[in-house]
Amino acid sequence: MNIVIATLFPDMCETVLNESIIGRARRANHIQISCKNIRDYTENKHRRVDDKPYGGGRGMVMQAQPVYSCYLSACEEQKPYVIYMSPKGTKLTEEKVKELSEKEYIFIICGHYEGVDQRVIDKIVDEEISIGDYVVTGGELPALILTDAVARLIDGVLPDEEAFINESHWDGYLEHPQYTHPEFWDDRRVPEVLLSGHHKNIEAWKKENSIKIT
Amino acid sequence: MNIVIATLFPDMCETVLNESIIGRARRANHIQISCKNIRDYTENKHRRVDDKPYGGGRGMVMQAQPVYSCYLSACEEQKPYVIYMSPKGTKLTEEKVKELSEKEYIFIICGHYEGVDQRVIDKIVDEEISIGDYVVTGGELPALILTDAVARLIDGVLPDEEAFINESHWDGYLEHPQYTHPEFWDDRRVPEVLLSGHHKNIEAWKKENSIKIT
Repeated sequence: MNIVIATLFPDMCETVLNESIIGRARRANHIQISCKNIRDYTENKHRRVDDKPYGGGRGMVMQAQPVYSCYLSACEEQKPYVIYMSPKGTKLTEEKVKELSEKEYIFIICGHYEGVDQRVIDKIVDEEISIGDYVVTGGELPALILTDAVARLIDGVLPDEEAFINESHWDGYLEHPQYTHPEFWDDRRVPEVLLSGHHKNIEAWKKENSIKIT
Repeated sequence: MNIVIATLFPDMCETVLNESIIGRARRANHIQISCKNIRDYTENKHRRVDDKPYGGGRGMVMQAQPVYSCYLSACEEQKPYVIYMSPKGTKLTEEKVKELSEKEYIFIICGHYEGVDQRVIDKIVDEEISIGDYVVTGGELPALILTDAVARLIDGVLPDEEAFINESHWDGYLEHPQYTHPEFWDDRRVPEVLLSGHHKNIEAWKKENSIKIT
């Protein structure tokens, strides 16, 4: 799996992608993830990537040319599946994440300002994806969410012992409540059954409490 | 508005929060956002913050004490509204974002590993929030999404001219397609009406195309 993120904020994205589980998986070559700075592909001599919208309106629109040239630079060996992070897109679900994790090569465009010239979206984008019904200031955090969610389904990215919990959990946010050392904290004791060593009862408690929460 | 993010990855969070619109708003003191390293609050001499789950199971659980001490350190002047990022939580929507933007002080707990000891969640958390039906490796990106979404509703954070588009748009991802310079790109011309200078027709086109997409 190879993921390329096209952004105006590559350093910020790199910092996030170098942390924790995803960072470890990149260093171990379980997954290739890289960032391209859209600004590096502009033909404008002042390195501009945006201009005023036709028809008026506030703010600036990212121009087609830098985005398209950035995309072309990622197509040298193989054509990627192109995603544009957008509130107009298909809502991200774990099912969609699984579908995307089967792609060989994904190219994610992060919009900023007032969006991206529609002509380059029409020309290259395979799918627009939204991470939820709320408003954020740019496509970078949504792209990082998507990348994290997809990456963790790739073989080798999660430690083996964790991989099996992919189905219904949020990396370890098991649905049933979790308790750890010490047994007493703030006058609150860990539920008796979890201390019992009685495997069958423990599993029953976990199952019951998972169902209760879900 | 004051937001404190409690995390094991404060540097990564800081990098994101220093970028772009949110970074500018922090520097201009329109909003206070800071990160606390949960590890700084552990009483364990080896700086541990996690331990094995009671009742068995894979991975590690974040202990109550460091999270609670971190929380107490944020309560010296005022008690914050405490949010735990969790797939079990209320689904984040723009309505919920607006509600949270009216709080004076928010403390966000980012879980990692197999979650956080339930006793400290029971003791201090006011609300659990989920950003969507997909699985990510930790609470940091969800907390940053929440912070970004809330921050942009605070007075002064967005440039004045953009503030009015909060209602139905994703920072400038206007619902109708956007076009910018040049008029011809890749043999594709900007829609005639946007070049016409005919204000009424342009507004009608924008409205029609917003409705079509939504």
